[in-house]
Amino acid sequence: MPEQLTLYSARICPWAQRATREQVDITLKESGLSYERFEVDLLNKPEWYAPKVNPVSKVPALAYGGPKVSPDQPSPESQKLAESLVLIEFIADLVESLRPKDPVIKAKARFFVETVTAKLPPAWYGAATRGESLDNVLAAIDVLQSLLPAEGYAVGEWSIADAAVTPFLARIDLALKNDLGAYDEGLGRKAWNTLHTDPKFERFRKYFADVRARKSFQETFDTEHILTNYQKRFSELREKRLGAGV
Amino acid sequence: MPEQLTLYSARICPWAQRATREQVDITLKESGLSYERFEVDLLNKPEWYAPKVNPVSKVPALAYGGPKVSPDQPSPESQKLAESLVLIEFIADLVESLRPKDPVIKAKARFFVETVTAKLPPAWYGAATRGESLDNVLAAIDVLQSLLPAEGYAVGEWSIADAAVTPFLARIDLALKNDLGAYDEGLGRKAWNTLHTDPKFERFRKYFADVRARKSFQETFDTEHILTNYQKRFSELREKRLGAGV
Repeated sequence: MPEQLTLYSARICPWAQRATREQVDITLKESGLSYERFEVDLLNKPEWYAPKVNPVSKVPALAYGGPKVSPDQPSPESQKLAESLVLIEFIADLVESLRPKDPVIKAKARFFVETVTAKLPPAWYGAATRGESLDNVLAAIDVLQSLLPAEGYAVGEWSIADAAVTPFLARIDLALKNDLGAYDEGLGRKAWNTLHTDPKFERFRKYFADVRARKSFQETFDTEHILTNYQKRFSELREKRLGAGV
Repeated sequence: MPEQLTLYSARICPWAQRATREQVDITLKESGLSYERFEVDLLNKPEWYAPKVNPVSKVPALAYGGPKVSPDQPSPESQKLAESLVLIEFIADLVESLRPKDPVIKAKARFFVETVTAKLPPAWYGAATRGESLDNVLAAIDVLQSLLPAEGYAVGEWSIADAAVTPFLARIDLALKNDLGAYDEGLGRKAWNTLHTDPKFERFRKYFADVRARKSFQETFDTEHILTNYQKRFSELREKRLGAGV
């Protein structure tokens, strides 16, 4: 019998460094594992969450094994695990088809994640919050593109490497399309147009269309919720930057 | 017959983000795999290195498989892999005893690496190069310590989790002991004394002694070379910071 599995997450969970909650959502959907999901209210965390699930009080987290219990009464007998990239590797250790079998291809999948998450989120974060050049974002996407095989996903077949980067691409695309960020008005939309029309980004566009078409993505990426949140957050950031004369 | 394996590395290879060359050296030694090692002169890289081994021209890198060739004539038939943390996972995919078997313990090992490498290198980098407080370093080491089991290595048995963090500990310890960094004179030695005498860090000390005692570490950590390099680099940084009145 499969072990009990409970995901503690939050619909609007900002990314932290190389991690987003959607990485785990997508991987769990693709895994076919059955799991319970508990929505953690980040502004009003249940008092049992830190002592019983994650001492640093962050989401997402998994409770694995132990008796079947109500998610708001986590058992001390289940294993509590955290950190998005750790969780997707864990899920792939449970369901091996989520990862390539060959050690070399496995290494290429990890290299893809390591490279993209080291470059893309910081580039976007700089542009979105400090008004740095969006050329850095395009350059990071060009690096991603250069690592793709001629066809298919990051390493051919879909794998957790794709789960790890798709949420960043989707969030950045959404923000650019709506011109949301601390950069000057119009620059986001301009970069979005480049990504969507410049022949240079053709391979990227195909990849992005492929990962976005997955049911696992469709079911877990909450466009409207993220957009509402971004609209509020980024309009403030742009005004703040312009107000400061930066 | 085992595949051919060539490590391209450099004796004095600075750390980058969460990576040091010693992570790979230690893992290869522990793996028992036989491999050739080619010393790359970072100040005068061979012209074939970027086109034939690593397009971004960094070390360490591995060439795996293909025919037995001289390391300075890499075969197009071997697979070229890079990024220290990717390489140690790759080596553990070849030699499974380098990683715990249980998925939960595997996840704990990855959580340990993720947490320590997200906290410790940036804290040390801030102190060493910008004169930020060494309390951040002690706090990061306290987090590391809090993740350790009562006995043994990061997750009990030695694993690549230990290979991933040991080089940072050894380099930081060496710098603190010799008071090398942009921080004010004496503060490094003071932090070193705290780490080595304060009862609070007793579990850390035992862990550090355990990982340092491994033959794989002894054979690969080049104390003298690193010390000479640090002496030069950090004395300049301190003077620069004091000169700028920061």
